[in-house]
Amino acid sequence: MIFTSDNAFGVAPEILDAIARANMGAVPSYGEDEITKRLQGRFAEIFEHEVAVFPVATGTAANALALATLTPPYGAVLCHEHAHVHVDECGAPEMFTGGAKLVGVSGAAAKLDPQALEAALATMPAGNVHNVQPTTLTVTQSTESGTVYTLGELRRLTGIAEGRGLAVHMDGARFANALVSLGCSPAEMTWKAGIDVLSFGATKNGALAAEAVVFFDPARAVDFAFRRKRAGHLFSKMRFVSAQLEAYLDDDLWLRNAAHANALAKRLADGLALVNSARLQAPVDANELFVRLPRGTLKRLREAGAGFHPWPMEGDDAENRTIRLVTSFATRGEDVDRLLQVVSS
Amino acid sequence: MIFTSDNAFGVAPEILDAIARANMGAVPSYGEDEITKRLQGRFAEIFEHEVAVFPVATGTAANALALATLTPPYGAVLCHEHAHVHVDECGAPEMFTGGAKLVGVSGAAAKLDPQALEAALATMPAGNVHNVQPTTLTVTQSTESGTVYTLGELRRLTGIAEGRGLAVHMDGARFANALVSLGCSPAEMTWKAGIDVLSFGATKNGALAAEAVVFFDPARAVDFAFRRKRAGHLFSKMRFVSAQLEAYLDDDLWLRNAAHANALAKRLADGLALVNSARLQAPVDANELFVRLPRGTLKRLREAGAGFHPWPMEGDDAENRTIRLVTSFATRGEDVDRLLQVVSS
Amino acid sequence: MIFTSDNAFGVAPEILDAIARANMGAVPSYGEDEITKRLQGRFAEIFEHEVAVFPVATGTAANALALATLTPPYGAVLCHEHAHVHVDECGAPEMFTGGAKLVGVSGAAAKLDPQALEAALATMPAGNVHNVQPTTLTVTQSTESGTVYTLGELRRLTGIAEGRGLAVHMDGARFANALVSLGCSPAEMTWKAGIDVLSFGATKNGALAAEAVVFFDPARAVDFAFRRKRAGHLFSKMRFVSAQLEAYLDDDLWLRNAAHANALAKRLADGLALVNSARLQAPVDANELFVRLPRGTLKRLREAGAGFHPWPMEGDDAENRTIRLVTSFATRGEDVDRLLQVVSS
Amino acid sequence: MIFTSDNAFGVAPEILDAIARANMGAVPSYGEDEITKRLQGRFAEIFEHEVAVFPVATGTAANALALATLTPPYGAVLCHEHAHVHVDECGAPEMFTGGAKLVGVSGAAAKLDPQALEAALATMPAGNVHNVQPTTLTVTQSTESGTVYTLGELRRLTGIAEGRGLAVHMDGARFANALVSLGCSPAEMTWKAGIDVLSFGATKNGALAAEAVVFFDPARAVDFAFRRKRAGHLFSKMRFVSAQLEAYLDDDLWLRNAAHANALAKRLADGLALVNSARLQAPVDANELFVRLPRGTLKRLREAGAGFHPWPMEGDDAENRTIRLVTSFATRGEDVDRLLQVVSS
Repeated sequence: MIFTSDNAFGVAPEILDAIARANMGAVPSYGEDEITKRLQGRFAEIFEHEVAVFPVATGTAANALALATLTPPYGAVLCHEHAHVHVDECGAPEMFTGGAKLVGVSGAAAKLDPQALEAALATMPAGNVHNVQPTTLTVTQSTESGTVYTLGELRRLTGIAEGRGLAVHMDGARFANALVSLGCSPAEMTWKAGIDVLSFGATKNGALAAEAVVFFDPARAVDFAFRRKRAGHLFSKMRFVSAQLEAYLDDDLWLRNAAHANALAKRLADGLALVNSARLQAPVDANELFVRLPRGTLKRLREAGAGFHPWPMEGDDAENRTIRLVTSFATRGEDVDRLLQVVSS
Repeated sequence: MIFTSDNAFGVAPEILDAIARANMGAVPSYGEDEITKRLQGRFAEIFEHEVAVFPVATGTAANALALATLTPPYGAVLCHEHAHVHVDECGAPEMFTGGAKLVGVSGAAAKLDPQALEAALATMPAGNVHNVQPTTLTVTQSTESGTVYTLGELRRLTGIAEGRGLAVHMDGARFANALVSLGCSPAEMTWKAGIDVLSFGATKNGALAAEAVVFFDPARAVDFAFRRKRAGHLFSKMRFVSAQLEAYLDDDLWLRNAAHANALAKRLADGLALVNSARLQAPVDANELFVRLPRGTLKRLREAGAGFHPWPMEGDDAENRTIRLVTSFATRGEDVDRLLQVVSS
Repeated sequence: MIFTSDNAFGVAPEILDAIARANMGAVPSYGEDEITKRLQGRFAEIFEHEVAVFPVATGTAANALALATLTPPYGAVLCHEHAHVHVDECGAPEMFTGGAKLVGVSGAAAKLDPQALEAALATMPAGNVHNVQPTTLTVTQSTESGTVYTLGELRRLTGIAEGRGLAVHMDGARFANALVSLGCSPAEMTWKAGIDVLSFGATKNGALAAEAVVFFDPARAVDFAFRRKRAGHLFSKMRFVSAQLEAYLDDDLWLRNAAHANALAKRLADGLALVNSARLQAPVDANELFVRLPRGTLKRLREAGAGFHPWPMEGDDAENRTIRLVTSFATRGEDVDRLLQVVSS
Repeated sequence: MIFTSDNAFGVAPEILDAIARANMGAVPSYGEDEITKRLQGRFAEIFEHEVAVFPVATGTAANALALATLTPPYGAVLCHEHAHVHVDECGAPEMFTGGAKLVGVSGAAAKLDPQALEAALATMPAGNVHNVQPTTLTVTQSTESGTVYTLGELRRLTGIAEGRGLAVHMDGARFANALVSLGCSPAEMTWKAGIDVLSFGATKNGALAAEAVVFFDPARAVDFAFRRKRAGHLFSKMRFVSAQLEAYLDDDLWLRNAAHANALAKRLADGLALVNSARLQAPVDANELFVRLPRGTLKRLREAGAGFHPWPMEGDDAENRTIRLVTSFATRGEDVDRLLQVVSS
């Protein structure tokens, strides 16, 4: 009954099999192998667009490398004030960019508020040497609150970015969950909505350790390979990272895994909605729930062996505390039902 | 008949099995799992010393993080002028240290010459604000020329380092190959020889992507975890990195794999010694050979399907070129014999 | 009638004389001269404490070097959300620290709110590798709103810092103005109030280009000299920077200059208080005023040749805008009176 | 009788006067003043070319900012192995570039050897992610050995750079001394010889603290202003830096000062040439001499009050040591004669 995180779960069997299949004799290293080469075409097909794709092994690497490619040291990355890149990566974007500034912008349910974004940009005039120069916007899809930007919401934000000449990055650690939630195409949720570069996550949704940085304008990727190497993120046995991504995309595994996780999150949300003492803190659009529960309930959950993370939020008090519950490709329906049973009891 | 690099080969079956075995349900992420926790004790046992161990997934990450922990931005890392960290990592140590300087020192067969080391140190007086401050020495074992420092050679260098207050790092990308070559204990080749921090490589010797940074003085490791996270090298599903390291050490797999690679390198060297037109460029102590061959021979090799890297060296001319040949845990004796046959023909 | 900034004014005659006096033949360079050496004792006397003093030439250099000495790359500097180091130095602290994060904290009139500080610290648990580690607090005295922290307010903040093991830096670009305002001793406003390192500003108060970084615990300064050199802030003809600081302290020039500026700011504030349409935005404790005025008034001021900076603030609207007025050591009383006359007309 | 360095001397009277003259009331700060604005045209005139000019206050700042503008973090700066930027700036270029690598190239008398440069470039293939990417060449004129590149020598080096697409920077800390030595025009020694960016030094030749970074292609300077601010090198009272540069150029002060220093160096060299026991280590083209002298002579010099720096060189032994002697705009002929007298005695 583990709901701590989707990364607490292991590897999807299809992906493990692909790793084993890739273990066939000697092949060129550092990404010169056939599996890695095939990825370019596969991603181009999926995204219906020319792309430059770079496999890496962690989400932090994907995000920090993408942002460093888009942002000079004197630049600013606009992001939600609760964005993972801002508060959960120990300063990785600052390290990779050589000291650019992340500027947190407010917005309900972890979605950037367009007006707040414009207000933040207004404080940093272009060309004024005293302030860092806004060059990059990053949005997380699905968000850190488990919500999903609508295409309209995305376009509104990327439109503001375009107006100031900012490149737009999407942190897609849970990209598949968002895609399934919106029911749109990968193209619609990315370049058609104004996204320039995507951190395409697979690890949380069934891979062992595999993410892809996807540039929709390959010209922007011109120095990515050097930055990746220099950061220690170019794997010598790259085929095993690429094989994960290939299997992840094959037979819609990524979409099936995400659909499973989202459905269980929905089931959990629906169940919690019937519990008087439970208060969902944000709409449950993908596979994360933030719910405020009485301390007694939390105690019962822990005693029943449930795993989850406390997630302190404004409004918490001595009696009621917010926790995060995450479902994954491998979460079982029976665990959801059991959790609901404990909460309702 | 691939001799391009040991990282061209895949994963040892024992390690692939261990990855599959580790795929059992939900466990704490980011290294809080049991497999990762067990590693501390396992390495302490192997090295007969208290240690702090941090798994990472690439050798560049291991080296750059280790050096960054030991070296302030205004520091200097003394290394061989052909050291991997200096010439093959696209400036990773400079990035991770915040701009420290790597100072290349000469020495035959990729071994640092003690006198050249002392001369280099003399050019950077302690406390003189005009020059960077030497704080770190790094040695590669086995070296970039496939040689292995004797314990006496190591102690001579670490003694010089100690005299100037330098910390000593060992790049052990091919640690097992060197260990097997010397026939000494891991302790003897590290802390007993004055090594403070070790990049313990497993990838080249049969792992998928696994290295360990081993601190023999855990007090030095105080900020390593932050640096690793910040560099995107803390894996959420860490158990799969740690499981590789565990299987690597189990039943002496690491030593058996290295012994196999070294033995084939020896067989290759012995065979080449009988060929008049072949000139070994350095003693073959481990699993790498650098040999100068006539262009005609190289052409025949290529036609026979042999894989190898040209390795330009001083003394090469229009007729004779140096190449590198690397054997691995998975290299087959018959490939060695076939290569020798082509060379001799 | 220039009120744009105190740095729009030139050099106090006493300081220009000192520069000329220092131009006597050949002396050791890079700070080995007698004038620079004397500074240590002079500052120790003024601050009644052992100190390590380092002259630099700009406030940004002083702040960024001081913060870099106190903050590792994975560290966080807590500061007011409007702090100069955060919004007006184009990311200098991020550059000098190697990518540490500045965390803006709210508080009225540019004074850090203690509760907001504690709340911010609570979001960054010590030892949690996912977030940057709070290591440093910086306060500006006088503040960016022209207010001055009382000694009690300072101690409350530094007490919180001490509780979390943070070092405390004071940005004293307008240190003398604050000191004169409080009427306390330099010791009381610094180390006795929990300040570890001070950027002691002189440029805005009559120097040509001279600041001093003052460490109250010289042990903390151990790597400052290397960082200063490496940043290009060690002057070869250092005597001319040091001579400015010496003259600045001689005969209480610094206090007299600041008292003059503060008195004129007070006269300006008192005059504006009598004008119905003028709204001071913060108490006028030192030499800066932030006042909201009708657009018509601003137009009249401009036509009369008054120099000032617009300073957009929440609450400004189509009719009324906030501007900043700064008085300096060289501002004339008649200019203040004339400005008041225009505003009142 | 001080020959330690040209920066041991103070400020030329004309420059001190200009500083005093610039101290006239309130003017816009941060380089928006008239004196600074005039500099653009003045430099364009002097160099017979469109330029973008940025005043800074130290040579290290000029060099490190220029190199950072030309070099990405994964780039390499080719320089002489004894270049000031490489061995005497405590890693400033590494800091400002975010960790680029300086690659030292050999060459007699501190002049880069063209063949050695080509050989170094050959070790770093373009596009190979394993090595840093050569992007920049920097030459020092006059050199660290007091020699001066001929225009032909410069063109040979810049031609090689051009062939590899490298930008070329000139460290002109002693630019005027070299110019006077060659007797050519500023244009001939810079853009006509393939120089893209120049650190134009004034401090060593009579300024208090003033250098200018001169871009011959203003498009390259696009982010310089942000980098300068971020490094703490944008002076609020910029007029006082610019006034130094203006006075330095007026009435050929810079050329007269340099001619004086060079003439005395020549007189010194000619005198030493007559002393049997003295061995000049390099041609004396500008205002620095490196001479090997018997220890007894050095002792006599010290006793006579002569100031100079020991400068250990290969070939020094127990009996003979190399020292550096530098003449400046303010060195007196009588001091030169007295030194010669002591040496000859």
